Amino acid sequence: MEPNASNSLQPDHCLEITPMEVHKVVPPPHRSTIQKLKSRLKETFFPDDPLRQFKGQPLGKKWILAAKYFFPILQWGPNYSFKLFKSDIVSGLTIASLAIPQGISYAKLASLPPIVGLYSSFVPPLVYAVLGSSRDLAVGPVSIASLILGSMLKQEVSPTNDPLLFLQLAFSSTFFAGLFQASLGLLRLGFIIDFLSKATLIGFMAGAAIIVSLQQLKSLLGITHFTKQMELVPVLSSVFHNTNEWSWQTVLMGFCFLVFLLLARHVSMKKPKLFWVSAGAPLVSVILSTVLVFAFKAQRHGISVIGKLQEGLNPPSWNMLHFHGSYLGLVVKTGLVTGIISLTEGIAVGRTFAALKNYQVDGNKEMMAIGLMNVIGSATSCYVTTGAFSRSAVNHNAGAKTAVSNIIMSVTVMVTLLFLMPLFQYTPNVVLGAIIVTAVIGLIDIPAACQIWKIDKFDFVVMLCAFFGVILVSVQDGLAIAVGISIFKILLQVTRPKTLVLGNIPGTDIFRNLHHYKEAMRIPGFLILSIEAPINFANTTYLKERILRWIDEYETEEDTKRQSSIHFLILDLSAVSSIDTSGVSLLKDLKKALENTGAELVLVNPGGEVLEKLQRADDVRDVMSPDALYLTVGEAVAALSSTMKGRSSNHV
Amino acid sequence: MEPNASNSLQPDHCLEITPMEVHKVVPPPHRSTIQKLKSRLKETFFPDDPLRQFKGQPLGKKWILAAKYFFPILQWGPNYSFKLFKSDIVSGLTIASLAIPQGISYAKLASLPPIVGLYSSFVPPLVYAVLGSSRDLAVGPVSIASLILGSMLKQEVSPTNDPLLFLQLAFSSTFFAGLFQASLGLLRLGFIIDFLSKATLIGFMAGAAIIVSLQQLKSLLGITHFTKQMELVPVLSSVFHNTNEWSWQTVLMGFCFLVFLLLARHVSMKKPKLFWVSAGAPLVSVILSTVLVFAFKAQRHGISVIGKLQEGLNPPSWNMLHFHGSYLGLVVKTGLVTGIISLTEGIAVGRTFAALKNYQVDGNKEMMAIGLMNVIGSATSCYVTTGAFSRSAVNHNAGAKTAVSNIIMSVTVMVTLLFLMPLFQYTPNVVLGAIIVTAVIGLIDIPAACQIWKIDKFDFVVMLCAFFGVILVSVQDGLAIAVGISIFKILLQVTRPKTLVLGNIPGTDIFRNLHHYKEAMRIPGFLILSIEAPINFANTTYLKERILRWIDEYETEEDTKRQSSIHFLILDLSAVSSIDTSGVSLLKDLKKALENTGAELVLVNPGGEVLEKLQRADDVRDVMSPDALYLTVGEAVAALSSTMKGRSSNHV
Repeated sequence: MEPNASNSLQPDHCLEITPMEVHKVVPPPHRSTIQKLKSRLKETFFPDDPLRQFKGQPLGKKWILAAKYFFPILQWGPNYSFKLFKSDIVSGLTIASLAIPQGISYAKLASLPPIVGLYSSFVPPLVYAVLGSSRDLAVGPVSIASLILGSMLKQEVSPTNDPLLFLQLAFSSTFFAGLFQASLGLLRLGFIIDFLSKATLIGFMAGAAIIVSLQQLKSLLGITHFTKQMELVPVLSSVFHNTNEWSWQTVLMGFCFLVFLLLARHVSMKKPKLFWVSAGAPLVSVILSTVLVFAFKAQRHGISVIGKLQEGLNPPSWNMLHFHGSYLGLVVKTGLVTGIISLTEGIAVGRTFAALKNYQVDGNKEMMAIGLMNVIGSATSCYVTTGAFSRSAVNHNAGAKTAVSNIIMSVTVMVTLLFLMPLFQYTPNVVLGAIIVTAVIGLIDIPAACQIWKIDKFDFVVMLCAFFGVILVSVQDGLAIAVGISIFKILLQVTRPKTLVLGNIPGTDIFRNLHHYKEAMRIPGFLILSIEAPINFANTTYLKERILRWIDEYETEEDTKRQSSIHFLILDLSAVSSIDTSGVSLLKDLKKALENTGAELVLVNPGGEVLEKLQRADDVRDVMSPDALYLTVGEAVAALSSTMKGRSSNHV
Repeated sequence: MEPNASNSLQPDHCLEITPMEVHKVVPPPHRSTIQKLKSRLKETFFPDDPLRQFKGQPLGKKWILAAKYFFPILQWGPNYSFKLFKSDIVSGLTIASLAIPQGISYAKLASLPPIVGLYSSFVPPLVYAVLGSSRDLAVGPVSIASLILGSMLKQEVSPTNDPLLFLQLAFSSTFFAGLFQASLGLLRLGFIIDFLSKATLIGFMAGAAIIVSLQQLKSLLGITHFTKQMELVPVLSSVFHNTNEWSWQTVLMGFCFLVFLLLARHVSMKKPKLFWVSAGAPLVSVILSTVLVFAFKAQRHGISVIGKLQEGLNPPSWNMLHFHGSYLGLVVKTGLVTGIISLTEGIAVGRTFAALKNYQVDGNKEMMAIGLMNVIGSATSCYVTTGAFSRSAVNHNAGAKTAVSNIIMSVTVMVTLLFLMPLFQYTPNVVLGAIIVTAVIGLIDIPAACQIWKIDKFDFVVMLCAFFGVILVSVQDGLAIAVGISIFKILLQVTRPKTLVLGNIPGTDIFRNLHHYKEAMRIPGFLILSIEAPINFANTTYLKERILRWIDEYETEEDTKRQSSIHFLILDLSAVSSIDTSGVSLLKDLKKALENTGAELVLVNPGGEVLEKLQRADDVRDVMSPDALYLTVGEAVAALSSTMKGRSSNHV
């Protein structure tokens, strides 16, 4: 068979094509509604097809695979070797040295007793080591979830006046966060976290980092009467209205340790091999400052210290959970927000390092692991935990090979809890503030913001909204605003789809956007439009107006000398992935409107779903004539040109 | 030049192509950010380009055009003739005979004094005749907006205990409805009503029709103690708990007139030429029943009548509007909901008849007209009005040519208000109930529901949600649920875009979906995917997982004997209308992941916007190599096959 494209289309429509060469548009192979529903549900909820490996296996094997699926430790455990253990013990000890001071600091950030931060670095890593599928994730409390948990609960309960209730609410929120995370995973609704776009997260993180740093001014300056609000304006006014409370000893100590920690961070960033400098610096600062306070009895000179901490492992806390009562709404809401934020961080961190080492992390499975970890944590005096970015990076750089590094970290924290707690009695709060500031400063990602500005101005606006929303309004509202704008942008894109006018690239049968490819030429008598979105109720009105305007513009255009008005409107539906009842009506209306002006509607390359829906319309002939359906624009133009010619030679 | 398509691609990749024949992908002509923003804003807010006609006109002419633009009466007024007037007077009198009984009935439906319904059929039609651009729209109160207005206000204020306040709130809601409608038009935000899809409206209308009919059981059965709730369950329980209140005289009269009205409706539906039968039936019923009641003094035998109505034209009511106070929230909310619902009806009716007569109705201009009509109405004792479907259909069938038919109707109502009011004193309420039931029964569109079931199952579910939401929960909630589900569907489509595997149709250079066109064949060494949606933050995670799964499936597929694994992943971006920063990252990640397996990422036909964003990425070479960019899939396969061949012949 001679290929169809020997027709070098010329704008003077001297096309010749024999009918044989036109390829038919055929309906897709028949599938029942149930089959279609099944495949749609599969694509929506099981895009990764987790059951693929089970196919065709004997029953016993299936059970083993299922156990391995739910407990990834069974996958890598049997192959675990001493060589891997050597790597894991180094990285485990390294992250433990980071986790202990950060755990204490983040618990204070959430207005919880410091020891809860250590409890939260003991149980959750053990749970994750059994259930988690990431090899690099270092699990524990994180700054942003701590901030949100504390700030949301503080709106209704004071952590100083009613510390026990506050603690109970924190554990209850953790329970609901875990429940929510595990349900998302179980119900395969993981895509909900996709609605937090990269731009939203960058703006949100930067805003949260500034809010967190501002909160640290309390301990860095030694202020005792500090505002309970979080936003930029009240915090700054509180800082400068209480200058008399500033303690020079605290400021000096804070400044020195901040410089030390930032320097250490800078060194590790310049030379990634020296990762242990920044990883060890917080512990060194804690030890050094504690020794200093103890030696100079500095706690008597205006430097506040952590104070006596209880020894011993996590006490059970399931009897502290609130499942009813007046605070239920608060804890559910707090659990939801902290749950989704910490999930986003955990999943993103897991995916980042999985991509670096080229292995797969199953998002929905991770959600179940993180969720279960928080549910168990809430029963053992832990608050919300997830995979922390900074610690996971250290873990990765220190050469962690498996989740065993989490177990090592957990054991180290256990030893600390059992024997070393008295040592923290003299640790000054100012050093914890410095550690937090150093940790969160990395969340402000200026190069990424510049990159977003370069690529997409709208994303940049979304980022700014998240940023200013967080620092000026509130953490939750800032996030809500940014997500709202992102979704609005998607809806706007759907409501105002692009319609491109196509022209023929001379010497080929290729048709491309006239306004993009300058060499592309119109074919007289034809208006060829490509619709670049699914046609649905939200855009049919617009599309109709826009297409009628294209026709109008085409006919009133003066610069082209044209022998004829429009004979054919060709709609290229290649990019129309779906259509609904409103869309079918649109095509019907268009066909009618065109017939009134003596032109014909021609459809090109409708996809399987679109074709089926068009054919199912009661009055299918009102929507499309079977002879006005082509596989490519080139074939349509060639075939229709010859009929046009035939017609005019008959009539003239 | 020899066209490129002389290469009849065969799956055994024996392709030969000379580099000369490959067409370059070029960046689109440069436009500044401002230019792009401008054209984007124009497409979003001015898709119909209303200023087109002003271009290149002298200043004086521009003023005239502007006046004609804002007051369409200036467009058709000068050409108005006696012949047109003859048509308009017939149709105007016909719709007046319908408008008077319907006006009284709908006002009662909104729990307002019956005379307000007549007031609302006097002023708004005059305003619309000056501002409106539809020739067929018959303006006045409508059933659904009346129902919603009444039910929303009744939740806070009782129309029987505090009728004056209720009336004030009704006028205030009308003011805000008008303000909201006019603002939507002025701000070119008309697309907001597009989010009420056809399926939503059909379900909503049917549900509202049932709610309205249920409310009429009060007057049809003569019950005096009736529930104030609207939903199915409380109304039915109220009806059957008060069987002792049923009055046989009322039931008999109601039944007779209902049968008469339904018969008249049936006749007109069977023979559209007899439109006057159903148009005149309500007035005939009112006159007949009034005479009957008067003759038999039936008001003394348990048949409730309208009672004395005040004579005279609309009193001013601007001093009755509430702009502050405790009810402001209520009236704004009521105005918003009734405004958007009545706008949707008015615009839809206008567009329907414009399409029938093949003229254009400008949505945003109509919104301003309807909005202004309601603002003026609220100051002259009118409640929410819009273009009513049933009356507009009668208007159209009666041969209306211009908006003068509205003026005729308005004058007729004026005469009624001035001189004929005492005649309505003995009109029984039961006949008004029968008129309402007959009018709303047409809102239940079973054939359209069947059509939706056939074409799109998901739309059918949305329709059912709107329907059951309205009859079981509440009118507003039912609507909100249906709109929510429709938007969720759009978001789901964006989150889970289709990816199609393309294959070559033998003997051509056409590539189509393998699962649709069974004759299409894979090209060994190539995986060709077409992405069918904009790539953005909401779907990058899914797309990455899905594409990696396609690669995995391709490589583990056993039924195809393959000499080679994947050498090239070709992504056809023709249908990707836009991309954001997350999307650019996706391509970068994909390229890296492929390089790890020794394959190459090739992009085909990115659109102008997509190409620009890719090129603006800092590390553009990480996203796409300039030599891995082709204009068509066919050219890409042809060019890459030859290099593949070259490579293997060099290496082997």
